[in-house]
Amino acid sequence: MCKIALAQINPHVGALQENIEKMVEFAQRAKVQGADLVLFPELSLSGYPPEDLLLRPGFLSQLEAGLDTLALAVEDIVLVVGHPARGQGGLLYNAASVIREGRVIQRYYKQELPNYGVFDEKRYFTPGRSAALFELGGEQLALTICEDLWHPSVVQQAVDAGATMVLNLNASPYHAGKRGERETMIRQHAVKQGVPILYVNQVGGQDELIFDGGSFVMGADGTQQLCGDHFEEGLYLYDTEQTAACFPVEQDESAEVYQALVLATRDYVNKNGFPGVILGLSGGIDSALTLAVAVDALGADRVEGVSMPSSYTAEMSVEDARAEADRLGVLFRVIPIKASFDAFLETLADEFEGTEVDASEENIQARCRGVILMAIANKKNRMLLTTGNKSEMSVGYATLYGDMAGGFAPLKDLSKLLVYRLSRWRNEQAKAQGEEVVIPQRVLERSPSAELAPDQKDSDSLPPYEILDPILERYIEQEQCAEEIVAAGFDATVVARVIRLVDGNEYKRRQAPPGVRITTRAFGRDRRYPITSGFRSR
Amino acid sequence: MCKIALAQINPHVGALQENIEKMVEFAQRAKVQGADLVLFPELSLSGYPPEDLLLRPGFLSQLEAGLDTLALAVEDIVLVVGHPARGQGGLLYNAASVIREGRVIQRYYKQELPNYGVFDEKRYFTPGRSAALFELGGEQLALTICEDLWHPSVVQQAVDAGATMVLNLNASPYHAGKRGERETMIRQHAVKQGVPILYVNQVGGQDELIFDGGSFVMGADGTQQLCGDHFEEGLYLYDTEQTAACFPVEQDESAEVYQALVLATRDYVNKNGFPGVILGLSGGIDSALTLAVAVDALGADRVEGVSMPSSYTAEMSVEDARAEADRLGVLFRVIPIKASFDAFLETLADEFEGTEVDASEENIQARCRGVILMAIANKKNRMLLTTGNKSEMSVGYATLYGDMAGGFAPLKDLSKLLVYRLSRWRNEQAKAQGEEVVIPQRVLERSPSAELAPDQKDSDSLPPYEILDPILERYIEQEQCAEEIVAAGFDATVVARVIRLVDGNEYKRRQAPPGVRITTRAFGRDRRYPITSGFRSR
Repeated sequence: MCKIALAQINPHVGALQENIEKMVEFAQRAKVQGADLVLFPELSLSGYPPEDLLLRPGFLSQLEAGLDTLALAVEDIVLVVGHPARGQGGLLYNAASVIREGRVIQRYYKQELPNYGVFDEKRYFTPGRSAALFELGGEQLALTICEDLWHPSVVQQAVDAGATMVLNLNASPYHAGKRGERETMIRQHAVKQGVPILYVNQVGGQDELIFDGGSFVMGADGTQQLCGDHFEEGLYLYDTEQTAACFPVEQDESAEVYQALVLATRDYVNKNGFPGVILGLSGGIDSALTLAVAVDALGADRVEGVSMPSSYTAEMSVEDARAEADRLGVLFRVIPIKASFDAFLETLADEFEGTEVDASEENIQARCRGVILMAIANKKNRMLLTTGNKSEMSVGYATLYGDMAGGFAPLKDLSKLLVYRLSRWRNEQAKAQGEEVVIPQRVLERSPSAELAPDQKDSDSLPPYEILDPILERYIEQEQCAEEIVAAGFDATVVARVIRLVDGNEYKRRQAPPGVRITTRAFGRDRRYPITSGFRSR
Repeated sequence: MCKIALAQINPHVGALQENIEKMVEFAQRAKVQGADLVLFPELSLSGYPPEDLLLRPGFLSQLEAGLDTLALAVEDIVLVVGHPARGQGGLLYNAASVIREGRVIQRYYKQELPNYGVFDEKRYFTPGRSAALFELGGEQLALTICEDLWHPSVVQQAVDAGATMVLNLNASPYHAGKRGERETMIRQHAVKQGVPILYVNQVGGQDELIFDGGSFVMGADGTQQLCGDHFEEGLYLYDTEQTAACFPVEQDESAEVYQALVLATRDYVNKNGFPGVILGLSGGIDSALTLAVAVDALGADRVEGVSMPSSYTAEMSVEDARAEADRLGVLFRVIPIKASFDAFLETLADEFEGTEVDASEENIQARCRGVILMAIANKKNRMLLTTGNKSEMSVGYATLYGDMAGGFAPLKDLSKLLVYRLSRWRNEQAKAQGEEVVIPQRVLERSPSAELAPDQKDSDSLPPYEILDPILERYIEQEQCAEEIVAAGFDATVVARVIRLVDGNEYKRRQAPPGVRITTRAFGRDRRYPITSGFRSR
């Protein structure tokens, strides 16, 4: 019999002192609750993923000193902590150490190193080969780390070595729907091997990644016996003598994704030390939702909105922008771009003489807005939030250094249709609490427009989002080729055009700010395409 | 006895039809020269690196069809070609196939997959396990691919299997000094195992990477018996009956790096289908060298220069910019930023009221230039070249969406001191040919300045480059910690400040355009740092 605390913490990559202080605090709370052991997530000492910091010998030395500091700072409770560890011959491992009374009594090296999607673990780590067990309260506890548990052989190996319980340290990045995948997988192993599995996951945002927590204990009978919170830190006590089934609360995708965006935005802004953010409010749906996310992440007093109308901007756009800011209580002002836009046209008059008006002039407007927003951001030390969505990023319907400017793009991995769904969901939440909706109904109903030319609509340049978004999902997330997408019922000409746009705009995406990954194929580290490419899908 | 042609080609990633046509042409030329076999580089069918195109089943199917097309298009000569290949269970291999009379008669799978630096091969490929030999003219030829030859065991395995000659297909990215490393390594193997090694490398630019060619044959006695050109395509015939020592021409680093920049810039512009480029000419050394590279890469008629003075711009800056353009014969004009800069200040007057003038105003100027250059680039379908160097990129001494705007940055991986060395070298080349220098002497002698504030000099904000550049090299390329750099004789306060700047500007670098990698640690795929990081080197 033993009591094990699952410490679902939000580490800060590279900030060892901060992470150690947090771990000491969680260990003390666990002790107060009567725990014999406190279990921290994968690489929790360094934060995950530390990326190429792992190539710095100085960082590895700091980690070794940090582990010593942590070991000496905690007494009367066993610690299990994840950290990078140098082994023989200078090889680096993704390790988990068991620390009792200041001494490492057992160490495990992760065996299955993910090197796909957002993962680069084979770039850094050598895989371990053997199980590592230790005794606690009569139980034989086996250590495993994240990906290990997706391979039945590792659990089998632990049980063969005598494990009566399996600890699993995770830094498992979120994507919509992943929660269910994890539970199903872990349940299979627990039932098949007849051992409970204690799954602890980190929580928090790290650049493009968001970790959703949701730590749990899966009993040997396949029932969940502990259900941690999602998207927040928590300390959860598992008592082997007093188990009871618990049932994870089902959440719809909108709620889940919205929480992911809020936490990712909060962590990116705070961990990078920005007092607040600024964003342009166009009167469109993307900036309206980004504003809501920012306010929910940071509070209204840390957010500012700016409307920057041109002569192509409808009056209702400025009205709606003002309404959004007012409803959420954020600082708002209107700064027209006419003077700067006219100045550029005048400056470029000779250069542009005899040419047709085209996207160049539209881009100048978007870039005037980028300059204004960045100027305020620079002057006030605020981060500029970028409001673009995945549909736009996919087809390049955005202006480099214009609306693409900014430090973080909360909606970067959301299709336009998902932006609508989340906006409606956020409004419903407000209504459910008896509050006014945060996104004006008109914003939800108007046809999307960049308002860079007279009477412009997105549908002038792009297929309707009801057509575009499913094509994009098939081409980007499902890796389908043109023929397959057409076979699914889409028009061949439209499909060919969309694919050409996706392929031809990699150069823009490469210069885009990071944003929250919520799908299985986000732009960024997750999708590594050549800019220079002659490939044409057929 | 046999005659083998080394086909040092410049493939186009993803452009299978184009690559096949090139290979057929080289095979025919080899046949005319009497070759029995023509040897192409690693993954030459797809181009290297194809990155996540390899995750598309449609791309792999096209490759399989492409290999068939190639096999049927060539007769009366044996082909050895590198290509991705799906094996049993859908596993993907980095393969080399031997094709005789339309049929694949042997296939080899690369055994050593690099997954460090710029390489991600374990993301895609499964390693092979065994040697693959075939007979030609009484010789037993073994296939090996690139990284394989850096591991003695693979050469040993081939010889144990009976190889009398080793073919090595490469896509080996250039960095300054790599040429010597390769020859030394291959010589060791050839002599130790007593077999000649035929090393064929691809040539050309692919996004951040430049491949330098330099194919060669290393005799079993350690003498080079064939020396291919660098930075250009070539077809080289090796006759086992008529070997003679050849001695590679020594080149100084400046010549080598300059050639790398020229080819990388040419390939990026051409393979991405741009008719020409435009760049801002500040009168400083970076834009002067970038202009020379662009003209050498593309010809004067495909290059345009723009001077965009402000009230802080010295008259001699505009004069020198004009002189640079005139000497190289490129279109040049002067477009002042006063009107647009003033318009922004006026527009932002309320917002900025009561604040001190700071870097925000400097950034607005840089961004006015970015808007003007991008407007012309958009209107004329020219690519904007970015002129920044590695020293600036390291410490963030550049404006996002301002001077950082552009599609390609030829000097991105060059320290400021190397920019000076290359500029002097390029001038000497001109003098040696009896021509006028291309970079005015005054540009080489003036103190570097961003000219964004009155009498501004780089040295107001940064240590002198003679101090800064060696600190950066130690911190970035050698991964030294602060203590080590200080121990090497640098001032502790300066070192701490430089490191803080490097660490704090990852967010800017993430939005920078690609540029040519010429060191062992370039910003981009080669150096994957978290933006959000609490790490502080000590």
